[in-house]
Amino acid sequence: MKRRNFLKTAGVAAAATATTTVQATEDKVYEWKMVTTWPKNFPGLGTGANFLAKKINEMTNGQVKVSVYGAGELVPAMESFDAVSNGTVQMGHGAAYYWKGKSEAVQFFSTVPYGLTADEMNSWLYYGGGMELWQELYAIFNLVPAAAGNTGVQMGGWFNKKINSIEDLKGLKMRIPGLGGEVLKRLGGTPVSLPGGEIFTSLQSGAIDATEWVGPYNDMAFGLYKVAKFYYYPGWHEPGTALETFINKSALEALPKYLQGLVLDAARIANQEMFAEYNARNGSALEELVNKHGVQLKKFPDEVLKQLRSVSDAVVAEVAKKDAMTQKVYDSYINFRDKSAKYADIAERAYLNARAL
Amino acid sequence: MKRRNFLKTAGVAAAATATTTVQATEDKVYEWKMVTTWPKNFPGLGTGANFLAKKINEMTNGQVKVSVYGAGELVPAMESFDAVSNGTVQMGHGAAYYWKGKSEAVQFFSTVPYGLTADEMNSWLYYGGGMELWQELYAIFNLVPAAAGNTGVQMGGWFNKKINSIEDLKGLKMRIPGLGGEVLKRLGGTPVSLPGGEIFTSLQSGAIDATEWVGPYNDMAFGLYKVAKFYYYPGWHEPGTALETFINKSALEALPKYLQGLVLDAARIANQEMFAEYNARNGSALEELVNKHGVQLKKFPDEVLKQLRSVSDAVVAEVAKKDAMTQKVYDSYINFRDKSAKYADIAERAYLNARAL
Repeated sequence: MKRRNFLKTAGVAAAATATTTVQATEDKVYEWKMVTTWPKNFPGLGTGANFLAKKINEMTNGQVKVSVYGAGELVPAMESFDAVSNGTVQMGHGAAYYWKGKSEAVQFFSTVPYGLTADEMNSWLYYGGGMELWQELYAIFNLVPAAAGNTGVQMGGWFNKKINSIEDLKGLKMRIPGLGGEVLKRLGGTPVSLPGGEIFTSLQSGAIDATEWVGPYNDMAFGLYKVAKFYYYPGWHEPGTALETFINKSALEALPKYLQGLVLDAARIANQEMFAEYNARNGSALEELVNKHGVQLKKFPDEVLKQLRSVSDAVVAEVAKKDAMTQKVYDSYINFRDKSAKYADIAERAYLNARAL
Repeated sequence: MKRRNFLKTAGVAAAATATTTVQATEDKVYEWKMVTTWPKNFPGLGTGANFLAKKINEMTNGQVKVSVYGAGELVPAMESFDAVSNGTVQMGHGAAYYWKGKSEAVQFFSTVPYGLTADEMNSWLYYGGGMELWQELYAIFNLVPAAAGNTGVQMGGWFNKKINSIEDLKGLKMRIPGLGGEVLKRLGGTPVSLPGGEIFTSLQSGAIDATEWVGPYNDMAFGLYKVAKFYYYPGWHEPGTALETFINKSALEALPKYLQGLVLDAARIANQEMFAEYNARNGSALEELVNKHGVQLKKFPDEVLKQLRSVSDAVVAEVAKKDAMTQKVYDSYINFRDKSAKYADIAERAYLNARAL
């Protein structure tokens, strides 16, 4: 735009020499590629990546043009981190817990069982020292991170039998990855890792007894209500899953300073946008699941939730012991959570309970 | 910056004619004034206005330079809306419920008793049709609105006697403005309107029995714990107060299109920033109020909250009847609240309750 305006207004003769130089520096257009861990246009997550790319394009007035690639289009989903780290592409969009092979610490920048809500995550990142730690961790990989979305509190999952006590988790084969899966295992269950595309048929065939996925909006699109009777809440294992963008540090630093700022600003807007979208769409999807598809909502019994909490805290504390950086991130995160929880008790929680009376 | 970069890179001779023209169009710097309803640098709110101005300056690379004025510096706080509407200044920062003299509908864009939480407000604005209604309403006044912050759930207030039943509100003189005050009045209390600066002495002298203000962070700064025994929660009357910026429509439209976008984008970042700040600072302030100043936290009894809810719903529904536009906004807001509340029950609320077990 800048170059075009310039040509329009400057007069062709006078501008002839000048524009060439300007174009080479100021008006340079940066063509970036964004790889993602989501199928192209996947509702909420893939569309969130698209939103971020579009926002960067708009905000930089076309100076940073980002093309989005779905999982597998350029690199497989789980190679996105490396592809950005080594400069094959300039940026990526995913969820930090996918990279726990790099460092266990990454999990605290997406979500951990009984961890921060979406609002608390933003507070920790921007006012609790979280962002500085995330930057320190990703700098090791020549990456700059930013929060770029949030699903909010997820659902506990789809079950074909009732969970009345902690005994009912014993022997349960459930699709639940990561730390949530580890908690289930310690309580006698069998966590299974399955990509999204295989969940429906596995649940239908009885290969698994239960599955978690995301929340009403994404779960309805997968048709999970057709193959499971009970929809349990709350999602104790993913209470506010943050999505991320990770940018090749050298690519970012090659931009003029104010464009660097705009790329990160776009992520902050994408962060808010996705959470607002999930809240609205989950509300509508829940209504449809219950009223149209007759889904039975069930709350995990308090006794079950208490035991899940106690095992979760132990599992998460063990993660922290993996290395010094992970311990440092854990300490900051858990201190923030415990302080925030006390405030949430008299603010958000007390109000939501009052409104539900 | 653009112009300076241009001069730096283009070579002085070649650029001589061109720069003049470029400067007149592309590189034009827009000097804007922002009036606010807050004392200059007032913690959270005034500093939120400063943040927005700084963000606009940064994001536009210095092309839109916003100077912030505290309440009374250019115009009195309550004349901010008119000053921007009539073009005396280009933008303002405040809370929409201050302008209910213009239309009762404005209140739904800040907060109403038993209304939306901060997250729900963002969902309603961006995915529930709220923003379009707000734009329609403010266009009448030649203004473009944007959400620019949120305090989260406020506190119920500071009391010198216990509230054990709804009877205890009878005869209570409490500083509580707006619709919350109207609810108190219908329950036999006496709502009083006082500016922030007079609250402390009024409570100390016994001229009032109770007061609400904001939350732990702002309330601690006012020293209210020194003159009241009990700190009640939750803030049923302000469950997620949105702050706003309002921009003179003609001034905004005089900017090149992409700068218009950046000004509104800056507001979205300020919106998230303030809420993140309040969450973090309220958590720390609460700790200090309880541990250092021995403040006694009290939850309103459920029976009191139920009656406040029932009167609140009636008062808010009456507001809607004032005119067709207010009714339209009310319908959209309340429908969204009722759907969101069902989702919050199994998501945020269920999780926060599980975490507190």
